[in-house]
Amino acid sequence: MEQVRALVFDVFGTVVDWREGVARDAAPFLERHGRADIDPRAFADAWRRRYQPAMEECRSGRRPFTRLDILHRENLEAVLRDHGLDPAAIAEAELDELNRAWHRLDPWPDTVAGLTRLKARYIIAPLSNGNVALLLNMAKRAGLPWDAILGAEVAQAYKPRPEAYLRTADILGLRPEQVALVAAHNGDLKAARGCGLRTCFVARPREHGPGQTTDLAPSEAWDVVATDFVDLAAKLRC
Amino acid sequence: MEQVRALVFDVFGTVVDWREGVARDAAPFLERHGRADIDPRAFADAWRRRYQPAMEECRSGRRPFTRLDILHRENLEAVLRDHGLDPAAIAEAELDELNRAWHRLDPWPDTVAGLTRLKARYIIAPLSNGNVALLLNMAKRAGLPWDAILGAEVAQAYKPRPEAYLRTADILGLRPEQVALVAAHNGDLKAARGCGLRTCFVARPREHGPGQTTDLAPSEAWDVVATDFVDLAAKLRC
Repeated sequence: MEQVRALVFDVFGTVVDWREGVARDAAPFLERHGRADIDPRAFADAWRRRYQPAMEECRSGRRPFTRLDILHRENLEAVLRDHGLDPAAIAEAELDELNRAWHRLDPWPDTVAGLTRLKARYIIAPLSNGNVALLLNMAKRAGLPWDAILGAEVAQAYKPRPEAYLRTADILGLRPEQVALVAAHNGDLKAARGCGLRTCFVARPREHGPGQTTDLAPSEAWDVVATDFVDLAAKLRC
Repeated sequence: MEQVRALVFDVFGTVVDWREGVARDAAPFLERHGRADIDPRAFADAWRRRYQPAMEECRSGRRPFTRLDILHRENLEAVLRDHGLDPAAIAEAELDELNRAWHRLDPWPDTVAGLTRLKARYIIAPLSNGNVALLLNMAKRAGLPWDAILGAEVAQAYKPRPEAYLRTADILGLRPEQVALVAAHNGDLKAARGCGLRTCFVARPREHGPGQTTDLAPSEAWDVVATDFVDLAAKLRC
């Protein structure tokens, strides 16, 4: 980690708790539409299950790069239909408002304190599949002190495509080994390592709720393994 | 200005003083190479005179979009030759270090205080022809509290091409009229207005030194006219 100048962060799950945030905003929506029987966390999980397949259309080249706000919105309409709700019968503004739940996710308790310490020594920026407006609105609301907003939209490629990591390093004016990815997901770190980036694993064992079975521990010897962002700052002597 | 959610800023001349910053770093370089006879401010002016023609190659389509660090570096070599210095005889690291003078420009005295106030009410981001790494390194050194780093490299178009303004608004998830450009240059504001953005003129009468003759006053009825960023914050009730 001696050469590292910039830390770039996975966001959904690593920086913020998407499941509780989406569920919090889905609950009153479902209730308004007479569907208080649907568990808002299960609704969040169902919405999120459509995330990778939607991006895969872009990664594969079957569809041009399309920002996440648009994929999220298409996925929302599909998940509503799956639950017997007709999106065409719901006001556009209301769908848009719920879609923006992804802009209003709360950070994990250690996130802001850890980022603030890390920022004193490193360039810090998201390297997320979220689009710029989503990440910027999230940062503004949550007080995430990013130096820049990077990620899939700026790189025009979704992780784990190599271009997402390599173009981000290039835009920063750095070589891959001068950039470290911080993520709670072993797969993301593996792809970053494959591109020459350094890797920091931070466990987020409640990302998928109390029954989580994935990414509970590092799957490889990542350069740094930390329990949260404050521990990461301590391990990097920030 | 009622609808405006984001303020985007021209940077060279508007946010920072490029002439004094470049001259400060050019002076010891010229001295080391036995050319203390060259006025460092005149050297800065000569370097800057090659800025618009270099970007024009990209705007016109004769050259693909090329980030400003590379154009600056080519222009540096040309301006050294114009002054009888052979860039090939100078160490690569030394040329690169001088080229990064553009990453180390100081803000005007009111910049940080003004931006800090404006940030409480608006999204604030550069909309500069500078590339992301340049703007990020500048912000980190100078304490510019941007919410995001936008501009030509993210939009893949140099101002005053309409794409630079329109893609920036689109990336922010905003309509053009929800974005205001803050600039010390009437031409930049005219292009932004042509795209539907709102416009804020801040006079920087010393950008080109004591003899400046251009952009001393607004050339049109811009939406806001301010004497500096603190005045702009006051006029926008921040």
